[in-house]
Order: sequence, then C-alpha cells, then structure tokens
Amino acid sequence: MSIEIIAIGNEVLSGMIVNTNAAFISTELTNAGWHVARHTVLPDDPKLLEQGLRDALARADAVITTGGLGPTCDDITRTVAAKIFDSALERDPGLAAELEMRYGKNLPSLEDLSLAPVKATRLPNRMGTASGWLFSQPERNLALLPGPPREMSVMLKEVLLPELPAAVGKQPQTQCARTLHLCCLREDDVDPLLRRLSADYPELQAGIYPGYGSLTVRFSGRNKSHVQLGVEAMERDFGTYLYEAPTGKIEEAIHGWFKGQGNGKGKTLAFAESCTGGKMAAQITALPGASDFFLGSLVVYANPLKTGLLGVSENTLRTCGAVSAEAVAEMLAGVFKVTGADLAIAVSGIAGPSGGLPDKPVGTVWGAIGERGKPVEVGHMYLPLSRETIIAATANRLLGALYRKVRFGIPFRSFER
Amino acid sequence: MSIEIIAIGNEVLSGMIVNTNAAFISTELTNAGWHVARHTVLPDDPKLLEQGLRDALARADAVITTGGLGPTCDDITRTVAAKIFDSALERDPGLAAELEMRYGKNLPSLEDLSLAPVKATRLPNRMGTASGWLFSQPERNLALLPGPPREMSVMLKEVLLPELPAAVGKQPQTQCARTLHLCCLREDDVDPLLRRLSADYPELQAGIYPGYGSLTVRFSGRNKSHVQLGVEAMERDFGTYLYEAPTGKIEEAIHGWFKGQGNGKGKTLAFAESCTGGKMAAQITALPGASDFFLGSLVVYANPLKTGLLGVSENTLRTCGAVSAEAVAEMLAGVFKVTGADLAIAVSGIAGPSGGLPDKPVGTVWGAIGERGKPVEVGHMYLPLSRETIIAATANRLLGALYRKVRFGIPFRSFER
Repeated sequence: MSIEIIAIGNEVLSGMIVNTNAAFISTELTNAGWHVARHTVLPDDPKLLEQGLRDALARADAVITTGGLGPTCDDITRTVAAKIFDSALERDPGLAAELEMRYGKNLPSLEDLSLAPVKATRLPNRMGTASGWLFSQPERNLALLPGPPREMSVMLKEVLLPELPAAVGKQPQTQCARTLHLCCLREDDVDPLLRRLSADYPELQAGIYPGYGSLTVRFSGRNKSHVQLGVEAMERDFGTYLYEAPTGKIEEAIHGWFKGQGNGKGKTLAFAESCTGGKMAAQITALPGASDFFLGSLVVYANPLKTGLLGVSENTLRTCGAVSAEAVAEMLAGVFKVTGADLAIAVSGIAGPSGGLPDKPVGTVWGAIGERGKPVEVGHMYLPLSRETIIAATANRLLGALYRKVRFGIPFRSFER
Repeated sequence: MSIEIIAIGNEVLSGMIVNTNAAFISTELTNAGWHVARHTVLPDDPKLLEQGLRDALARADAVITTGGLGPTCDDITRTVAAKIFDSALERDPGLAAELEMRYGKNLPSLEDLSLAPVKATRLPNRMGTASGWLFSQPERNLALLPGPPREMSVMLKEVLLPELPAAVGKQPQTQCARTLHLCCLREDDVDPLLRRLSADYPELQAGIYPGYGSLTVRFSGRNKSHVQLGVEAMERDFGTYLYEAPTGKIEEAIHGWFKGQGNGKGKTLAFAESCTGGKMAAQITALPGASDFFLGSLVVYANPLKTGLLGVSENTLRTCGAVSAEAVAEMLAGVFKVTGADLAIAVSGIAGPSGGLPDKPVGTVWGAIGERGKPVEVGHMYLPLSRETIIAATANRLLGALYRKVRFGIPFRSFER
C-alpha cells in the first residue's frame, strides 16, 4: 500500500512557494500508518500534468494532489483528472446553492466552482470556495485537494483521511514508529549504534536527521518489539542526551522542565549572549508561556556593554580576551547579579567569517552555565563552520547542556568536538 | 532545455523535513534563465532511487539531486548514481588529504568520504565534509549535491551554476528580471499598481511575495524596457519603502546603511526588546560585521528587568502597562543611557496566544525609535496573527521603520494596519 503526493503549480516549480503541503500530508499519512512513496511537483500544463498523474496512478495505490482547483485560467487539475477517469463535468445545483449561501450571489466564478466531475465524490471545503474531489476505482484512487494550506489541511484531516480506508479498500498498516531527539551529539556519535541495530534487526528502519547541535533519530518497522529494542538501546547508550519535544526543538524541552511539576517549577532563567546575539533568547521566547520562567537576556555584543552592564573586568578582556573561560565566567556572575535568575547561561565566541586569531580561530566558543550561588561550569567548543551554523549550533548545544544539567545532573563541560 | 530536481531521503517523504532545497534551487535556476520541469522526492531505497533517477534522466536535460551523500548507512546516492553511469568508485588521495587537512585525521568516515566515482567531476564542498559530483554525458547530466541547505546552497551558487552551461552544452534563456524589496508594506498596498502594470504591459510578469512585515516584488519578461517601466512605477509610488538587500532581508539594508559611506558611518545601534525576545538582535547579528555598529540588546522580558535595567518607572508599568507608548518611550530612554548608542529601537507587545486584554488584544505592539538627544518617535501596530508571525512581523516592521527613518528621513509613526 503506497501513496504518492503531487503538488501542481508553476509557483512551486519556480521556487516562489515552498511545498510545505507535501510535508504536512506526509506527516499526517505516516502518523496514520500509511506509506508515502513519492512526492512530485508538476507544472500547470495539461499534457504534462496528465502524464504525471497517469504515471503516479500506475505506480501507487492512491495519489493525493494539491493545487490547481481554483477558478482562474491556470487551475486545470479538476479537468485533467476528469479526463483521466473519463468523467463528465456537470453543474451541481446543491453545491451552487451552498456556495451562494456562504459567499453570496456575486461570488466570482460561482458557476465554474459548481462544476462537479460526475464520477467523483465531493470533498467539502469548509475553509474556502474550491471543493476537493475523490475519484475511486479499483487500483486507481485519486484525491484532489486545494492548494492553500489552511484549506488543504482541514480537508485532509476532517474529510479525506477518514474516507481513505474505504476508498482504497485497505487499512493502513499498523506500523510502529518512534522518534527520539538528542541534544549535544553529532551524527557520527550515534551512527555506529544504528548500524549495529540495522545489522541485528534488518527489518528495523533507522534514520538519523541532524539539526544544528542536535539530532533526531527515528525507528520504524512492522515489528513493534524491534522498534522498542532500538529505543531501549538508545536510552541505554545516550539516555542523558534524550529530550522530549513535540517538534524536536531543545527549547521545548527546557520549557517543559521549567513549567513541569519537578524541580524546575518556579525557577527562573536568564542569559548573557555575545556571539549568539540574542538567538538563545529568541528561541526561548518563540514559544508561548516563556514569561513563566524567562527573565531576559543581556545581548552584550560590544565589549563596553560586557563591562558596563555585566561587570566583566577590563583586565580580563585585556589579558584573556572576550572569548575566554574567564570572560564568560564573569558574564555569568554578572547576569546572576543583574537579573536575579536561578539559572543562567553566558556565551562568547567568534562567529566569523573574520575576527579569528591564531590561538582562537573562527568557531571558537566559550560558554558558562550555572545555578545561582553554586560553582560556575565553564566549557568551550570549536565549530569550524559558517557563521549561521556556528550561531545556531552554539545556541542549541548550550541550551542542550543546560537541559542535561537540570534534568539529569550532568555538569557542563567542554565539547570535545 | 529542462531541469528536474530530486530530493532523496525518507525524512522528506515522512514529512519530518520540508523540501526547502527544491525551492531554493528552483529560484536560483529560474533567475539564471533555466527552466525547472519537475520536483521529485524519492526514498533511501536503492532500487526505487535508481528507477526514479533513470526516469528523470530520460525526460530532462539535466537532473540535480540533493541528499544522501553523507557517510551514514542510509546515504546511497553516490553509489546508485555510479551504477547508473557504470562508474567505479575509487579512493581519491587528493580529496582524502584535503579532508584530513580541514578536519583532522580522526574525521569519522574519512575513507568513505574520499571515495570518488571515476566518471564524475567533483563539486567541492567548502561548507562540509561530503563532496558533490557531476556526471556529464551527452543528453544525460546528473549533479549530486548534499542535503544540508547551508552546504547545498553554496555549492549550487559557487560551483554548479557556473559549470552548468558547459555541462549541458546549452545556454540559459536570456530573460530580464528585477527584484524589489519593500519594508513596512502589505501585499494589498502594492497589488493595485501591479494589476495596472499587467494590464498595460501584458508580457510583463509581476509577482508579489509577502514576507513577514516585508514584501518582494519581481518583474520579469523578455522586454527589458517593460521590466524597467515596472521598476520605475514602483520607485515613483513606493520609493521610500524600497531597500537594497542581496537576500531580501531588511537587516541587510540596515547593515548597508551603518557600514556605508553616508551618514550612518561610525554610528551605533542598540535595542531594548520585550515581545520580540531577542529576535531583532539575532537578525542584526546573523550577518557578518554586526560588531562594526551594533552594541547589543537588552532583552527585558520580565518587568523587573524593564525597571531595573532600563529605568522604566513602576508607576508607568502600573498605570499604563508594559505594552504602552509610555513604557516603550522609557525603555528607549533607558537603552540610550545604558548603552550610549546613537540610534535605538524599543519594543513591547503581546505576542500571545494568551495575555490579551480587552483594550490590548493579542497582537498589540508598541514601538519607539529614536536618535540620541532627539525627540522619541512612538507608534503602535496591531497584528492579530499567530505568535510566530507577530514576533517576526514586529521585528521586520520596526527594522524597516528604522531604515526608512535613517535612509529617507521618514519619521516613525503608528502602522494603520
């Protein structure tokens, strides 16, 4: 049982619009136990679209398209599908009446929008004007959804997914999948274990998806116990790197800890950021409810702000430099003093591309993590990467290190790589 | 002349990762005058990948893939491509030496990464470890790029695009195109003008691509003078909203002003951010050379930091609230005092989803912009949107308003919409 997803539209092929619809549909289908075999984007061209749809229908058990259902001249999906299924298009008086009731008599293209392929079932669109359609024949199933994500997503969840088993005459495979998120690790830290697991359990599928300074590992397969063995092996070898996050972001885990019922409840957090330039704060505050625990961040990009706001000593800056263990330790002391936070992170590094020194090349970063009144933990990392990657990986690694500290009691140390 | 783009990876098919690579490559190819005929996403499965690649090579003049080039077990693109082109894989001592020089002897999978398909040209990857490859035969051209967008984008622009005409033996079509970036405007501010232009010059193609708090307008067509007329009409009607930015980001224009030879040279900038939570600072510091003019940002998320760090009065917070003209004006005065900056922005708002009040619903934002020693300019906006969109649009609009002020002398005022 396999499903292909096809987006239709020159605006996607020209790169003006990113095909987020395919990712959304894939996630929903995969979570429901269906297998997605292919994504395709085809142009607003009747011949190329017809050929592309016929090829996909021949390969897959079901094809879901997005786009090309509106009333403008370049919306051709319904017509092409009707041709493939040898279906006439006829005015549907019930649909016309419904559209008129919802949008008034003056809805442009009311007549066009009311044309129904007689061999298709209508998929109602309560978010917009263009209906979806489901053509269902033995071995040939084609569902047409509109392109706007907020219309498509509602129709997929509310209408198409519930109808899919009956339409294709199959139930989704009960496939077991587990997704694990790991902070402060790199792909090659985890790869050897996954290779061993794949050798031991050939049916177990394991994927590694590196982020910046974090990783996602996904196990899937028919055999639930193999998936479980994979998860247990990861928990055994990397237990203190694992974090819970609905969309995989380390800041979600941090929110969870500070807002949870455990030790974090009632504690507060603040940052002193130099090279990350506010990114750590922006990540924490991107999520709702940050004000429950997050006090703020002192983005002390210029050295006079490090001394003036945080009390970093001129002597430290002169003798050790702003990117040093001493400087971040003083920044951390300063942020505790200024904000009164319970927990804090301070960071200073060289994000490049210029500004590197022989003993401190671009990618050198020092961080400090601590709890108020307790000894400071200082560590460094070296990330010889692009500016954007250095900033992103630094933020995620330090947030990850904070999480490991508060959640598992792991002290923050230098990253060896 | 047509090009197909293929992303390889189960993580894309399962919906875990959105295929932004295809949009990026399409944009670059389209801007260079190439025609993109199809996007496809294929799984990490040797047989299905081979068949998908063979089909695409048979249809298109050139195929560009992304993903599956790393050293882990699910990275199979190089092997499958070598099989299709009947090419052996051999250790490349030069590549091995280069990787060792850049990443050290202990780079895991150094040997695997040094395997080169003998019939392919190497596409060097200065951002990462996995090389790209270009197989070029009459009527069959296949370029393999790595999956991580930072690596892929640099290789595409610096290496593959310049080689493409020679590889495929064809030149891209000469089409004239101009891209304009506008801050502080919405799609429907510009739409009427573009409709008039399209009516007057039917061959002129005009596209509007809204960002968060900014817009991109693109004119294209074979007739250069029509494209120029479009640009001139935009300059006439929206001249003080236009900004120069290589990748369309308003922070690029701000960098340009502060680092340029005009009035901005030598001036400094600082922020006081509440609802944007460090995002404005992160945007400014994401670009190299921010330290030339950017001092820092006080991310005063909690009210005690607004009073303690910036001197906002308890009375103002009590009587007017933290989201008020009075509060942002005091924040701005505080940031001048604390940082000594020449120019500054202060912002406070309700990003939601909770925290709205009857007279200050979610999406209410107050901002202040000023020059040290000059009167403060205060304005508000109302953005009844998602948290993420409120934060992003607030940051871009205020950065845009700062740019309009310094570049064109337009005072900052409330946004009517």
